[in-house]
Amino acid sequence: MNVNTNINKLKAVSLRLHKKYMGKIQTVGKMKIGYDDLKIYYTPGVAYPCLEISRKHELSYDYTNRGNSVAIVTNGTRILGLGKIGPEAGMPVMEGKALLMKKFGALDAVPLAISARTENEIVDFVKMIAPSFGIVNIEDIEMPLSLKVVRRLRKEADIPIFYDDSDGTGIVARAALINAAKLVKKDIGKMKIVVNGTGAAGIGIASLLISSGISNIVMCDTAGIIYKGRKENMNEFKAEISEKTNPKLQKGSLEDAVDGADALIGVSTKGAFSKQLIQKMNKDAIVFALANPFPEIGYYEAKEAGAAIVATGRSDFPNQINNFIAFPGALRGLLETRANRINSDILIAASDALADLASEAARGKNKERIIPKFESESAAIKITTAVATAVAKAAIKTGAGGKKVSPGEIEKKIKKLFSDYRKIEESL
Amino acid sequence: MNVNTNINKLKAVSLRLHKKYMGKIQTVGKMKIGYDDLKIYYTPGVAYPCLEISRKHELSYDYTNRGNSVAIVTNGTRILGLGKIGPEAGMPVMEGKALLMKKFGALDAVPLAISARTENEIVDFVKMIAPSFGIVNIEDIEMPLSLKVVRRLRKEADIPIFYDDSDGTGIVARAALINAAKLVKKDIGKMKIVVNGTGAAGIGIASLLISSGISNIVMCDTAGIIYKGRKENMNEFKAEISEKTNPKLQKGSLEDAVDGADALIGVSTKGAFSKQLIQKMNKDAIVFALANPFPEIGYYEAKEAGAAIVATGRSDFPNQINNFIAFPGALRGLLETRANRINSDILIAASDALADLASEAARGKNKERIIPKFESESAAIKITTAVATAVAKAAIKTGAGGKKVSPGEIEKKIKKLFSDYRKIEESL
Repeated sequence: MNVNTNINKLKAVSLRLHKKYMGKIQTVGKMKIGYDDLKIYYTPGVAYPCLEISRKHELSYDYTNRGNSVAIVTNGTRILGLGKIGPEAGMPVMEGKALLMKKFGALDAVPLAISARTENEIVDFVKMIAPSFGIVNIEDIEMPLSLKVVRRLRKEADIPIFYDDSDGTGIVARAALINAAKLVKKDIGKMKIVVNGTGAAGIGIASLLISSGISNIVMCDTAGIIYKGRKENMNEFKAEISEKTNPKLQKGSLEDAVDGADALIGVSTKGAFSKQLIQKMNKDAIVFALANPFPEIGYYEAKEAGAAIVATGRSDFPNQINNFIAFPGALRGLLETRANRINSDILIAASDALADLASEAARGKNKERIIPKFESESAAIKITTAVATAVAKAAIKTGAGGKKVSPGEIEKKIKKLFSDYRKIEESL
Repeated sequence: MNVNTNINKLKAVSLRLHKKYMGKIQTVGKMKIGYDDLKIYYTPGVAYPCLEISRKHELSYDYTNRGNSVAIVTNGTRILGLGKIGPEAGMPVMEGKALLMKKFGALDAVPLAISARTENEIVDFVKMIAPSFGIVNIEDIEMPLSLKVVRRLRKEADIPIFYDDSDGTGIVARAALINAAKLVKKDIGKMKIVVNGTGAAGIGIASLLISSGISNIVMCDTAGIIYKGRKENMNEFKAEISEKTNPKLQKGSLEDAVDGADALIGVSTKGAFSKQLIQKMNKDAIVFALANPFPEIGYYEAKEAGAAIVATGRSDFPNQINNFIAFPGALRGLLETRANRINSDILIAASDALADLASEAARGKNKERIIPKFESESAAIKITTAVATAVAKAAIKTGAGGKKVSPGEIEKKIKKLFSDYRKIEESL
């Protein structure tokens, strides 16, 4: 009853405010201009930066906003848990994401909800807009189309392609898992880790763990355990992952997979985990129930079933595993080094930085602080700076980022940009 | 010498400021948000506007920023007078245009400088982004590709396609011509009007005059007078216009065309008009030398040659004919009525509104005020409101705009939006 009242209230408030403001984002200048300034910022003065960039394309990062810009591209086929609702209807989420990017990363995001269905259409679209942006973030496109698009674009586009639903979730879940393992004093490399769900998030988490040298992973989907050679309900991504996980070629159901598991990560659906399931796990079980907004099992229910450490995607329980603590810093780090691609070293660096921050916050013993939290502006600056710095370092080291930048410069810039935006927010 | 010094200074200032700010535009929120607001503007609250829009797509104009948004699309093939410098190098102009749209129309513009060369690529691109925007403005694409794209899109896209280089110039030049004719006491319908230049601007001006019932027009290009049946140096647009202009089938050079002309409109190149050419015109000659930044003939030179009224594209001489007094209001009027297309009645209404404003300002006798000017914020509000109101009225009348809106509502909204942006500018 209370839940329903709150939901009805939230619905009314959300619709009222979205309508009042007519959406959530706008385009504004970076400086105040008077009538006499037009000759500098428009004709004839604008011709000079144009000519400089035409001489050397990289100068677009100096003379335009490209180096601070992110395109958020969706085709509206998998908006939140709402499914295939179309580009127009996906836009409120994309505007929200753009708002998060500004608030937590001082990034200028442009949501592009497009009417495109095929892999080729989306790939061509992103390649066309690449000259206008520093990064493209693929968002809420149905699987496996999204991963196909990302894979193609990572070969064919010359700017980084971030896929937050997959990469972002991978970064944050891996960081939380590292800290959870520390807290229960287990060697993450020896743990049996079950990942339930083979959507973008599941593939992202498993891929990042595999890239970190962890392979005792058993993945499950609605057809049960994925093993090398399985025929039913497969796609190219599951097939690839089946080669690198499940070393014992275990077969069977989720229940079979969980037997003797140290960690269970759900990126599936509401209520997918029962107490009985958790009870089949090893001692000091780690349970991440990340289905959103309704987890596979409630935080306290999982605790009651004996889990030592529990995390969900919700802000109203401890240990919220949410991409938004990762992507602002990750994108910032890529932009600051003018990276032209993303690689697993970069994602791992972002994840390690988050794990270190949380570990510090928890001083190694707080089971309700396995992941850092955006609880204040100073926390946001700290987290975004730490992730950006780690990403920039990895980008430079791996050659993805061509521009050297020091941690001090990144920190200073982030502080300046946050302060600038605080002033703008005060004027709204 | 002085000119060169000023140019060098402008170059240095423009490069310095573009670099200092890293471009000119940014994405910001429409409201200040705290951490607790995320549940309204992002998950889970954001799902409600998504669901409403999925039920009825038109609600994207209520719950997202679509109804205030303009995509500026270029492929970088005809940036200012600089030519084919590419999408990256075209971006400073597109950002400048976005800044003008905000400053003078309170519009939220997104510049998309894309790597696309063919008609099909650009048309497909624009159709893909249509769900995210209220209007698409085609900008600085080479001719005749641009007009082909616009023609296709006006059939195939379900939002208005504005082509400022053509439509905007047409609106403003026609308004100036109406007032100039009044001042010299000639009947515009009986005047011989020579248009030199068959680019986007020339076609735009001629088309709008033809739509207004004026047909004693002679168009010239580098091969001389265009007449029905001419074979050399033609394209589909020149061929179409040749059917509706030059009723006497005059042939020959620009000099031949100008013989006995009442108005000469140049949208061609620097220095294309000599004093001798002007002297061949009828008494009380009207000369618009709109090549930018260097006109076909200087303002005072044309006056010395005997022209009664002269206009250029420059801000440092009287009678500046510049699109930016038209497009903010025209786009605003289309958005306020949620128009799904543009038609010539709408363009004519915008042009008439500008002519009326200038006529009022000049009280019918100031030959240096044939067109209104953005000389203050109140002037900008007045001009944008007048054009928007006229456009909205025409859009509703012709069925292009589905939402009724009163002049009072438009004026109130524009004042509010300008005031909101003034506050933001103060915070920058």
